Amino acid sequence: MGNTLGKVFRVTTFGESHGLAIGGVIDGCPAGLTVDFSVVQEQLDRRKPGQSKVTTARIEGDKVEFLSGFFEGRTTGAPIGFIIRNNDCNSKDYEHVKDVFRPSHADFTYQEKFGLRDYRGGGRSSARETANWVVAGSVAQQLLNTLGVKVVAFVTSVGSISMSSNYNDLDLSEVDSSIIRCPDLDIADKMIQEIENVKMQGDTVGGKIMVVATGVPVGWGEPVFNKLHAEIGRAMLSINAVHGFKYGFEQVDISSSRGSEVNDIIKDKSGLTETNYSGGIQGGLSNGNDIYCEIEFKPVSSIMQKQSTINTDGVVVEIEGKGRHDSCVVPRAVPIVEGMLALTLVDFYLRSLSNKITL
Amino acid sequence: MGNTLGKVFRVTTFGESHGLAIGGVIDGCPAGLTVDFSVVQEQLDRRKPGQSKVTTARIEGDKVEFLSGFFEGRTTGAPIGFIIRNNDCNSKDYEHVKDVFRPSHADFTYQEKFGLRDYRGGGRSSARETANWVVAGSVAQQLLNTLGVKVVAFVTSVGSISMSSNYNDLDLSEVDSSIIRCPDLDIADKMIQEIENVKMQGDTVGGKIMVVATGVPVGWGEPVFNKLHAEIGRAMLSINAVHGFKYGFEQVDISSSRGSEVNDIIKDKSGLTETNYSGGIQGGLSNGNDIYCEIEFKPVSSIMQKQSTINTDGVVVEIEGKGRHDSCVVPRAVPIVEGMLALTLVDFYLRSLSNKITL
Amino acid sequence: MGNTLGKVFRVTTFGESHGLAIGGVIDGCPAGLTVDFSVVQEQLDRRKPGQSKVTTARIEGDKVEFLSGFFEGRTTGAPIGFIIRNNDCNSKDYEHVKDVFRPSHADFTYQEKFGLRDYRGGGRSSARETANWVVAGSVAQQLLNTLGVKVVAFVTSVGSISMSSNYNDLDLSEVDSSIIRCPDLDIADKMIQEIENVKMQGDTVGGKIMVVATGVPVGWGEPVFNKLHAEIGRAMLSINAVHGFKYGFEQVDISSSRGSEVNDIIKDKSGLTETNYSGGIQGGLSNGNDIYCEIEFKPVSSIMQKQSTINTDGVVVEIEGKGRHDSCVVPRAVPIVEGMLALTLVDFYLRSLSNKITL
Amino acid sequence: MGNTLGKVFRVTTFGESHGLAIGGVIDGCPAGLTVDFSVVQEQLDRRKPGQSKVTTARIEGDKVEFLSGFFEGRTTGAPIGFIIRNNDCNSKDYEHVKDVFRPSHADFTYQEKFGLRDYRGGGRSSARETANWVVAGSVAQQLLNTLGVKVVAFVTSVGSISMSSNYNDLDLSEVDSSIIRCPDLDIADKMIQEIENVKMQGDTVGGKIMVVATGVPVGWGEPVFNKLHAEIGRAMLSINAVHGFKYGFEQVDISSSRGSEVNDIIKDKSGLTETNYSGGIQGGLSNGNDIYCEIEFKPVSSIMQKQSTINTDGVVVEIEGKGRHDSCVVPRAVPIVEGMLALTLVDFYLRSLSNKITL
Repeated sequence: MGNTLGKVFRVTTFGESHGLAIGGVIDGCPAGLTVDFSVVQEQLDRRKPGQSKVTTARIEGDKVEFLSGFFEGRTTGAPIGFIIRNNDCNSKDYEHVKDVFRPSHADFTYQEKFGLRDYRGGGRSSARETANWVVAGSVAQQLLNTLGVKVVAFVTSVGSISMSSNYNDLDLSEVDSSIIRCPDLDIADKMIQEIENVKMQGDTVGGKIMVVATGVPVGWGEPVFNKLHAEIGRAMLSINAVHGFKYGFEQVDISSSRGSEVNDIIKDKSGLTETNYSGGIQGGLSNGNDIYCEIEFKPVSSIMQKQSTINTDGVVVEIEGKGRHDSCVVPRAVPIVEGMLALTLVDFYLRSLSNKITL
Repeated sequence: MGNTLGKVFRVTTFGESHGLAIGGVIDGCPAGLTVDFSVVQEQLDRRKPGQSKVTTARIEGDKVEFLSGFFEGRTTGAPIGFIIRNNDCNSKDYEHVKDVFRPSHADFTYQEKFGLRDYRGGGRSSARETANWVVAGSVAQQLLNTLGVKVVAFVTSVGSISMSSNYNDLDLSEVDSSIIRCPDLDIADKMIQEIENVKMQGDTVGGKIMVVATGVPVGWGEPVFNKLHAEIGRAMLSINAVHGFKYGFEQVDISSSRGSEVNDIIKDKSGLTETNYSGGIQGGLSNGNDIYCEIEFKPVSSIMQKQSTINTDGVVVEIEGKGRHDSCVVPRAVPIVEGMLALTLVDFYLRSLSNKITL
Repeated sequence: MGNTLGKVFRVTTFGESHGLAIGGVIDGCPAGLTVDFSVVQEQLDRRKPGQSKVTTARIEGDKVEFLSGFFEGRTTGAPIGFIIRNNDCNSKDYEHVKDVFRPSHADFTYQEKFGLRDYRGGGRSSARETANWVVAGSVAQQLLNTLGVKVVAFVTSVGSISMSSNYNDLDLSEVDSSIIRCPDLDIADKMIQEIENVKMQGDTVGGKIMVVATGVPVGWGEPVFNKLHAEIGRAMLSINAVHGFKYGFEQVDISSSRGSEVNDIIKDKSGLTETNYSGGIQGGLSNGNDIYCEIEFKPVSSIMQKQSTINTDGVVVEIEGKGRHDSCVVPRAVPIVEGMLALTLVDFYLRSLSNKITL
Repeated sequence: MGNTLGKVFRVTTFGESHGLAIGGVIDGCPAGLTVDFSVVQEQLDRRKPGQSKVTTARIEGDKVEFLSGFFEGRTTGAPIGFIIRNNDCNSKDYEHVKDVFRPSHADFTYQEKFGLRDYRGGGRSSARETANWVVAGSVAQQLLNTLGVKVVAFVTSVGSISMSSNYNDLDLSEVDSSIIRCPDLDIADKMIQEIENVKMQGDTVGGKIMVVATGVPVGWGEPVFNKLHAEIGRAMLSINAVHGFKYGFEQVDISSSRGSEVNDIIKDKSGLTETNYSGGIQGGLSNGNDIYCEIEFKPVSSIMQKQSTINTDGVVVEIEGKGRHDSCVVPRAVPIVEGMLALTLVDFYLRSLSNKITL
């Protein structure tokens, strides 16, 4: 259980880091959508390891193969099956964790929950799974494009280095101008420096990503348990290493604010507001303004330092970091965040089609 | 859609602020559970309006009536239907918003989504709905009690006043010693003062609540899309006025941390760790330590000041605050937060029963 | 679990035969639907006990109370909560089954599954639950009416007495002209006679109901696991005492037919076919012709004769029939069957709104 | 939507008859199950085309490739991804139906629902999809085996030839002794003759399959909308060409029976009954006796005779049968029926684990 996302546009995934392949099924995509497969591949390439000096050295082609659901370039309404073969699996890098539980990793919890675990590359708990989300997210994004909805994510913080500008004052088309994917290019350089410092120390560091959706019409979301921001939050908190989520209140502290300062005044019938502390959502429903949120990542747990832990017999042992890991996940997480927001939005779009009687 | 929470322990709710009644159905509660109805009522009483000088003056008896699912005091496995009648509905207080969209309220988004809205007391968007969650949450909590799992929430911040202690250094049985429900009683007094100041200004202020679950065994949660913290996050973000969610990293900044500082070292086979930056969850699964998270509330939108907005014709008008509202929601939100965590945990408990083959 | 029907138009129910009330929540009904509550009540009255000499003598007012989801007579998109109070509960009629498992009843299976049971009136296993379905089904039917879809059910067989006409040769507006609800009035009289004979013997007898939906557009249903007829079948098999389901092939044996005899030739672009052996469905999707199916009911298990069984200690005992029961359920089941078909159809209507890209 | 079966043990499938591959994801299989892949392949081989003179001549290797979810031969609790490559696709056999709607096929309904269709081999509507069900069903069956539950299906009727024995009087281990898979070997020969006659005439014929599950403990199923027999019925009605479903009442007419004749008398605390008209289910829950049902298949629509129909322009045209088709589907459908029953049962087994409090 737990491997399906969405109610109408549904993504079900499978695959381990060092198995034969990862992949998934997209069910509920409307028929008639033209999908540009090269765009899907471009998003995958933005996520893939080995793309720059600030990412892990694992090399994966990450070529997605679509197996069904298309006819003459368009979706047919049938489920879209896809797989990505795993190639560069150094499973021997993981022999040393076969009988040891790495600190702040899922090794111990998987072992206890399931009674056995595929320790190679972290198995199902590996962030390799997120490649599936990028594939499905890109299909979702292409459907959103037909409605004029755009999604763009970017890095706002790495360790002690944070952006202080509001996103409206930046050119978001510049996100990929820097390998760190921060549109404030001065800050971007400092972030890269921060990662290199951390990496040299065999350490890791956290960071933040902001994501913005423009063009979302009024009324996506559901009033009570499936509030738009609650489902966005759930999607973001599904991403490995995410520990915090905040929507609206850009560069502003939420809990110390006063109502009189942060109420958003509606300007006209379009629903546009003078300010956007609400992050584009009121009562769990999109309100016609930009939807934005910020996601906070902890430093990844795989550090290149010695640590104490226990082995599967419960004996305290020392473990040393091995394998190829990111010192900071945020640059590679940008397309993942975009994908998860696109998947959440497209599901609510399709759900919104039955909001009211249309005669 | 959107009015059901949970997969196995499922709660489906209904009701508007000024309708005849609110209520719900709990489906999937195992048979044989003895429920103490007076405990349910106590939790409701902690949420109900009019309980102290820091809450709204609306008076609701909030007496829950259980209609089904019990036989001789125990659950039967049949769905548990319940209702709470609405009594103190001053619908005339809302006549002035019939044709006006209040700033940062759900009026505009509901109207656009559904083509009509029940404006009385905010209709379905009112936090009155959360009384249903407290009822279901209390039943969930009583099931968790049989497993040794306890859930307790408390206020950590009101406006500019924040607790600086770690919860382990406080006596959590003191939460209700103060009407603000902060277990640090010195801080509690300052918080009350903060609310009274804000109220005098006709303004509102945000705050934070922390919730802790103790006694959760290893392995609750699901690996990918239904990670334990992701579902907790979704549950908390469903609560009216919540804008931020963070798990683990108590009193510590997430994104500027280093891996070497915040990795939690496992001490023995129980899974207990030396520190608990992980908030009791690794890889989306409970790890045997305390589960805790912090939820951030914005200031409520109903202020007693004049604001500009538009009416249903799109004309800019001025609106003045009326009705009976809280200046700060956190004291009343404490049992709601507890309920939502209990509901999330109990669902994962029941889902965990099929984790592995047991022969 | 198991108390929710539908994916978009979702009905969740609760209640036992002799509890305080039965009721439910309809979630996902589009906003803006005008519901005629007297029509809902009329359908309930067609189902209610005590309506004629061919039904049980239990008297229930069966007055439904809608608690939420409406504003000024129209649905708001919020969930519709409703309850029906139980009044005429002779629980003492059931004291004799407290410790005995009635043959071919759910007493034994409930006891074993849940470890306890509410034996009064059959508890949750009672067909009283179907009153909830009639309420929800009538709301569904009123939504279908706005699309030109009509649903009508009628009795085709009682014991050894069966209709031999095709429904197209009968006037279906005559269904309620007879208390047995068979539109072939000569046959109807024989059916009533059959029931009276059976009743006199303290026995019960089975029967069949056919249901027809007209005006369903092409394309409702889903290709694989949620085929239209599969979901209709599931809905019908949910009705107490139903043991058989068949769609299409009116008055014709399915398995001995030849393809050359029963293929339906399409006449024109509307999809209308020369014959309708397919029952209006091809590949799991509606094809524009009448949808029809036949449901087969076993004789109810509550007979007024002595039978052997065991008690809760496992000792063989004799049991005598008590309580007020129907000798044949089909006349009262007609509105239930209509309700279940309407609920199934309306869900697929709403699901069909996201079939294809519409730009 | 509509490509997922089950609530806890969930199967999501994809694939078209002439696409690159079909396949699926099994989510919710408990960890620790040892799966014999050769047994899965054997079941696939029982379903595959070209296996005998009574099946279609299409040759498919139907080799299943498992991509994830196993570690050292056992399930890990992670989702099980699998694919089956399509090899022998004579898509040119289908060029003639590109612009024509075959009678009693899904061509017209798919075209109308989705606006386009993959006409090659019937696309998603092809029974090729059922190979996926056999794969998942075999995994389910292997889990059921660990509980002592066995599932066996067999042919009871082909056209005018029907078995008259009760299954208890036959040796069900003989099912595969005949290519028609009827355990009454005299009848089996007549069935084969019937199919050969029909085939010679370029025609097709219907048939029936019975399936029996032994060893099911008391209490699987859910009381109201997910009754065990209702979900079995839905599963069976999902199989291509199925038009009828009946549970219990072996060799007995349901609707003309009397209660006094068909009530099943409980013999002792095991729940075993003297007769088994109930088909092993009471109140929607298994009662400890054999579960059995009979499924009725129409003759397949692809006949080798000229038929009238319309083309995509709505013009009446004549169409002649081409391609390689079965004259009667029942021999190949036996493992499909077994698979669908196993999938339904295993889901209810896992759901039953949370029936009651166990302290």
